[in-house]
Amino acid sequence: MNFAEELKKRTRHADEVVCSFLPVAEGADETLLSAMNYSVRAGGKRLRPLMIESTCRMYGGNEKLAEPFMAAMEMIHTHSLVHDDLPAMDNDEYRRGKKTTHVVYGEAMAILAGDGLLSLGYETAAGAFARCSGQETAYVAKALQILSQKTGPGGMLGGQSVDVELDGQPLSEEQIDYIYSHKTGALIEASLMIGAVLAGAPDTEIAKLEAIGTDVGNAFQIRDDILDMTETTEELGKPAGSDERNKKTTYAGIHGVEAAEETVRQLSARALRQFDDLEAEEPFLRALLASLTNRRK
Amino acid sequence: MNFAEELKKRTRHADEVVCSFLPVAEGADETLLSAMNYSVRAGGKRLRPLMIESTCRMYGGNEKLAEPFMAAMEMIHTHSLVHDDLPAMDNDEYRRGKKTTHVVYGEAMAILAGDGLLSLGYETAAGAFARCSGQETAYVAKALQILSQKTGPGGMLGGQSVDVELDGQPLSEEQIDYIYSHKTGALIEASLMIGAVLAGAPDTEIAKLEAIGTDVGNAFQIRDDILDMTETTEELGKPAGSDERNKKTTYAGIHGVEAAEETVRQLSARALRQFDDLEAEEPFLRALLASLTNRRK
Repeated sequence: MNFAEELKKRTRHADEVVCSFLPVAEGADETLLSAMNYSVRAGGKRLRPLMIESTCRMYGGNEKLAEPFMAAMEMIHTHSLVHDDLPAMDNDEYRRGKKTTHVVYGEAMAILAGDGLLSLGYETAAGAFARCSGQETAYVAKALQILSQKTGPGGMLGGQSVDVELDGQPLSEEQIDYIYSHKTGALIEASLMIGAVLAGAPDTEIAKLEAIGTDVGNAFQIRDDILDMTETTEELGKPAGSDERNKKTTYAGIHGVEAAEETVRQLSARALRQFDDLEAEEPFLRALLASLTNRRK
Repeated sequence: MNFAEELKKRTRHADEVVCSFLPVAEGADETLLSAMNYSVRAGGKRLRPLMIESTCRMYGGNEKLAEPFMAAMEMIHTHSLVHDDLPAMDNDEYRRGKKTTHVVYGEAMAILAGDGLLSLGYETAAGAFARCSGQETAYVAKALQILSQKTGPGGMLGGQSVDVELDGQPLSEEQIDYIYSHKTGALIEASLMIGAVLAGAPDTEIAKLEAIGTDVGNAFQIRDDILDMTETTEELGKPAGSDERNKKTTYAGIHGVEAAEETVRQLSARALRQFDDLEAEEPFLRALLASLTNRRK
């Protein structure tokens, strides 16, 4: 397998799947639909949909069931970015080199676009019931449960709320860990789990995938801190050095770039050891998880 | 049946059901959970949960399936109020005589509390899968589909977006109709439909309930306009006369209070005629729908 080529091919496919579930921007609420499309189509690595597709394949699942969840996951992830960028939150004007949703559509419409993506995410995921039969119905119900638990309070939104509440304050290791594992980790855990659940993988495998997701999420977020400290605005597509300017306590800020790099390596190695322990194999997903250690944006 | 007593009894029960699904405010994201609890517990008539419970009973359904949807509906409705009150939207400081969520918890936490209620609403509704068996699984899947379609773009959020977009502008009858039937009507339609769907009522009945919901939603919203023009702030628990101050075009504002009262009577009469056409009976729900014509707050 040529990983770079396979990544390109699968990312293009994941992007097509995600976009195929977006509503056409027309009718009375055209502006809302347009803002939702803008936010999702502004780019992104489609990492979470790729993970869902990969673990579904890995356990021999029905990809027609994975597709609505791939789109749902990206909508819910994008919802969190749109709301996170709002003036009342991080007040970011650029993301992925493009103007953020509230800069283009105004604050009120950006709030509603985020709400719309969150709601449509669940609607899209629930659409998988129309694609399944027999035992698969139980898989979809379980995947929906994981999606909502990892998204809501107790999951991603719980992490966001602690991040907002402690904004600008010095944070303990425990608080940083809570924020990273929830704000970033929860949806990565969910993505790895959902594909396998839809394929009917046993609970023991789902639990291992969740643990892998936790390590990958932490590594991913610490890598994000490092990039913010070491890369340029142009390379990132968003303002570099923003954590320091915003007095944001980060893992890399506390421990320094070198120690943070070492932690990323350790987390990544542990995730890969756990991956090799799974009952099924997916060389692409293994390479994808490994590549997160070295990403440059 | 003594309607006033029955209403009191059922409202208390609906309130208990709704609150039983709210998470305890503790742990790292205690503030988020506390803001979510505050918003839902600030009161409200629990009209939508009452509707779900009533149509479920009406068709002999399993109330254990209705309960998660009653809570989910109130969470999603409250989500829309919390976001609607935000400074970037209506900028309201009081609702139901109490300070709005962003006044108490700050804007960022109110955005997340609204997101949390929307997400937890779907999580709670999906929890009904754990309470059902056999054919009921399909009922829950269908109810979830209705809930999400009536909530998202194309539903309530579509109505909100048009309301926001045309804010302060003179509106056509068609635009007012779109806003009322989506922003207010969609969740009332969904509430009447979902109870019946969970009870396995035939599609023809569901379609009639949807039409009843449309008329009731419109009547409800026009009554709201009238109250804003005729009642005091004290009676409403929120600032009276706000539509005029905000240059908001309303049905009652265009046609005057008397003509608006007449429209409410006509919509209500049509809804009740359709109600009498249904295959099942529920005297309490009939009285509840009739009472919406005369409500004073």
